[in-house]
Amino acid sequence: MQLIENLVEHLQSLPGLGPRSARRIAMHLLMHRADQLDTLAELFHSVSATIIYCEVCGNIDEKSPCTICTDERRNPNIIAIVENVSDLWAIERSKSFKGCYHILGGVLSAIEGVGPEQLKLHHLQKRVTQLSENSENLELIMATNLTVEGQTTAHYITKLFKNYDNVEITKLAHGLPAGAELDYMDDGTIITALKARS
Amino acid sequence: MQLIENLVEHLQSLPGLGPRSARRIAMHLLMHRADQLDTLAELFHSVSATIIYCEVCGNIDEKSPCTICTDERRNPNIIAIVENVSDLWAIERSKSFKGCYHILGGVLSAIEGVGPEQLKLHHLQKRVTQLSENSENLELIMATNLTVEGQTTAHYITKLFKNYDNVEITKLAHGLPAGAELDYMDDGTIITALKARS
Repeated sequence: MQLIENLVEHLQSLPGLGPRSARRIAMHLLMHRADQLDTLAELFHSVSATIIYCEVCGNIDEKSPCTICTDERRNPNIIAIVENVSDLWAIERSKSFKGCYHILGGVLSAIEGVGPEQLKLHHLQKRVTQLSENSENLELIMATNLTVEGQTTAHYITKLFKNYDNVEITKLAHGLPAGAELDYMDDGTIITALKARS
Repeated sequence: MQLIENLVEHLQSLPGLGPRSARRIAMHLLMHRADQLDTLAELFHSVSATIIYCEVCGNIDEKSPCTICTDERRNPNIIAIVENVSDLWAIERSKSFKGCYHILGGVLSAIEGVGPEQLKLHHLQKRVTQLSENSENLELIMATNLTVEGQTTAHYITKLFKNYDNVEITKLAHGLPAGAELDYMDDGTIITALKARS
């Protein structure tokens, strides 16, 4: 039983899984050995061996520069600045963005002890400087989360590049989300939506 | 991105995981490669290579007969008949049962086309016959779920062994669960609890 208990315990340590769901997944894996357990083990192995960080944007991919950075249909002069890879995934899922990304790897946070040095800001500055020397116009889209830390970070980056002549800094629109019912919206969102009405 | 998408897709096919939780787990695994992704891959491999079915009770374990069947502190003449390994786990978690098990591998179900041949009933009959020849008394505890199929199966097994002289057939008590509030209990449970009052 030791090995099975080990398996359940490990699964339980994954985010979002409790004891019950871990047991359920362990049982499912044990019952579907060939097509689930073995396949996943192989997949984990090859992911671990293959996936690297993109040297340009910090994305994770099988190659560096990543698929997005090397995609010729994408505009390298429009860069969305996001906190994490999962934010990049979220924007990619919308299938509406044809620029590139820069992943900070976190946000400025006094509480967590994250300063500008801990984020990929130096890297971003180098990238922007290089691009702005070569190209005519550059757009940096602040796409950090609408948390205090996310907005502080966006503010910090905005200040960082305010003296760059050909760098335009934009941010994602704030307002009501799709399908919103006013009754369920928080005051902050309603105030923003009212102020930014068009 | 293909490999990461593959990973997310596979995780998503596990029971209880949706797209969001699969992505979250994939990201977690990618961020903790050495201590999570690699460890899990190894664990999956060794589980797949090691875990077998117990020839006595149908449990899954690293050896056959399993840890429970070979435990000398357990009474081999008290057998709890359960539907699946997860039911065995549930009883084991209660740490209150010192007998052995027999796993049916399902329940009788006309809708799903599961007849007595599909369950490990022949195996159970052989086991009980063998035991009843050697020992004085034998107890079979019906521990199938309180669903229609579970109870039908228990009924079928009860009939199967009613002519065995030294086999006593019992079933788990029905009534209010621990911490129950009457207001939240269904009628069936209250009726059973009233009838079986003591």
